[in-house]
Amino acid sequence: MKFEVTILGSSSATPIFNRNPTAQVLNINEHLYLIDCGEGTQQQMLRFDIKASRIDYIFISHLHGDHYLGLVGLLSSMHLNGRKKPLYLFGPPHLMEIIDLQLKYSETALHFPLEFKETNTEQPEVIVSNNDIIIETIPLYHRIDCTGFIFREKKRLRKLRKEVIEQLEIPVPYFTALKKGLDYTAPNGEVFKNEDLTTDSAEPKSYAYCSDTIYSENYFEQIAKATLLYHESTFLNDMLDRAKETNHTTALQAGEVALKTNAKRLLIGHFSARYKTLNELLEEARSVFPDTDLAIEGRTFYID
Amino acid sequence: MKFEVTILGSSSATPIFNRNPTAQVLNINEHLYLIDCGEGTQQQMLRFDIKASRIDYIFISHLHGDHYLGLVGLLSSMHLNGRKKPLYLFGPPHLMEIIDLQLKYSETALHFPLEFKETNTEQPEVIVSNNDIIIETIPLYHRIDCTGFIFREKKRLRKLRKEVIEQLEIPVPYFTALKKGLDYTAPNGEVFKNEDLTTDSAEPKSYAYCSDTIYSENYFEQIAKATLLYHESTFLNDMLDRAKETNHTTALQAGEVALKTNAKRLLIGHFSARYKTLNELLEEARSVFPDTDLAIEGRTFYID
Repeated sequence: MKFEVTILGSSSATPIFNRNPTAQVLNINEHLYLIDCGEGTQQQMLRFDIKASRIDYIFISHLHGDHYLGLVGLLSSMHLNGRKKPLYLFGPPHLMEIIDLQLKYSETALHFPLEFKETNTEQPEVIVSNNDIIIETIPLYHRIDCTGFIFREKKRLRKLRKEVIEQLEIPVPYFTALKKGLDYTAPNGEVFKNEDLTTDSAEPKSYAYCSDTIYSENYFEQIAKATLLYHESTFLNDMLDRAKETNHTTALQAGEVALKTNAKRLLIGHFSARYKTLNELLEEARSVFPDTDLAIEGRTFYID
Repeated sequence: MKFEVTILGSSSATPIFNRNPTAQVLNINEHLYLIDCGEGTQQQMLRFDIKASRIDYIFISHLHGDHYLGLVGLLSSMHLNGRKKPLYLFGPPHLMEIIDLQLKYSETALHFPLEFKETNTEQPEVIVSNNDIIIETIPLYHRIDCTGFIFREKKRLRKLRKEVIEQLEIPVPYFTALKKGLDYTAPNGEVFKNEDLTTDSAEPKSYAYCSDTIYSENYFEQIAKATLLYHESTFLNDMLDRAKETNHTTALQAGEVALKTNAKRLLIGHFSARYKTLNELLEEARSVFPDTDLAIEGRTFYID
């Protein structure tokens, strides 16, 4: 199953030329999920050939402009381009009030159903569960209410051991039960343990998205063992005081989060405009957690 | 006096790669005035090296997203970058309600005074008058309330005819009165007519900005003899019905507006995303009004 993320924006609140505010697109089994939608997200999607019409889910972490100011424009374009199918939107309680006000004064009645669900910023909550993925909110610790999101592949069914199955001549109608972990009782009454007939499927992969937050161990358990962890990394650690003051994280701390939660790989982003180049941020995070990359515009990362 | 406009965005509602929604910056005597502020205006300002801190006036024509969705982000950046001086904002009645709601939920209290004045969409109104310029709203005819803006240089004082002044030995303290058009009475009682002592100053230049509107002669008188007329030109004339239906103008009609109002030059913009190239639009407008240019990103036009 395809499971990858493309970065559309990597900057924090104030703009810098050629770095855009936060937005990422996940491709999960050829379905697109947009996470945050900073100003300019539509231009970035055009740049990287991502079709807005293929997005069915949008997740907004919080109501700072650099995470959602591209949303109303995107919704308007979907409307103008004739979208009819529903769009599922998840975000903080007041997001819909902002959208409604803007649509009202532009006298726009969307031609497609916009299904909004408020995120709970107090405790983790499963907000989507479909054939491919389970999506849960991650309560974070920012200046205003903020959640991250964790995308976990559904646990697959166990795999049949073909050679054993054939040898025992187990009939096809039993296969689904075996994949679900049941034992097999032969016509002669003999019982075969499931573990002798099947093997476990691969460990489900996960993408943890931790947008704006102060460093806090409170969300560590929830993001443990992420296949790919995205963590904000607004400052270098020499600005730790400023990071604390503004409820942000440093690159060093992002590396520590990855290390302590046993992430497989780390992506850092949400860089302050003060950093014209990003190498120092990368090196700082890598000093703690070597398997780190920069979440910069246009790059696609496979979650495997 | 410097009087020029730089185009930051030329597209209409739905986005197209490398064409941005409407925004223009006027430089009038080294003061910057922003007209409309579509999504991505900040990136465009960075691209063309226009300092947001130098903008003291912003004018929003109407509340369709392609004309104002970049505004809250711009205000936030001004705030984060330490702006203290006032910013004067002009726009439709509900603009401030939208801004206030977004600032409220991001828990942002601007560090600078934002002085908002509602535009009157029913009749022309002078909204700014300073040493350099008089700015008036132009009521337009769109799907929702919309105004354009006309920027007229202040009429300069008359110019002294140096040789006559010297010959008559008119003392310096009289000069201001002469420049204002008064006659001169010599010590011997002889009266010299002002027109013999001065010449008229140059005709004041003007920039008329006609954003989204259906073709209508109602605003022709107000924009008459513009030095530079910007007029929206969303469609080619083979889509005249669609233009009428959506309250927009065709390139041919924009040419007619310029011709009938005796504009000196015409700029067309606000191009539909359906036009991947713009030559046909330009040629169509030029077929009626030859001195036409495309208002495309990064171009600066002198108003002279």
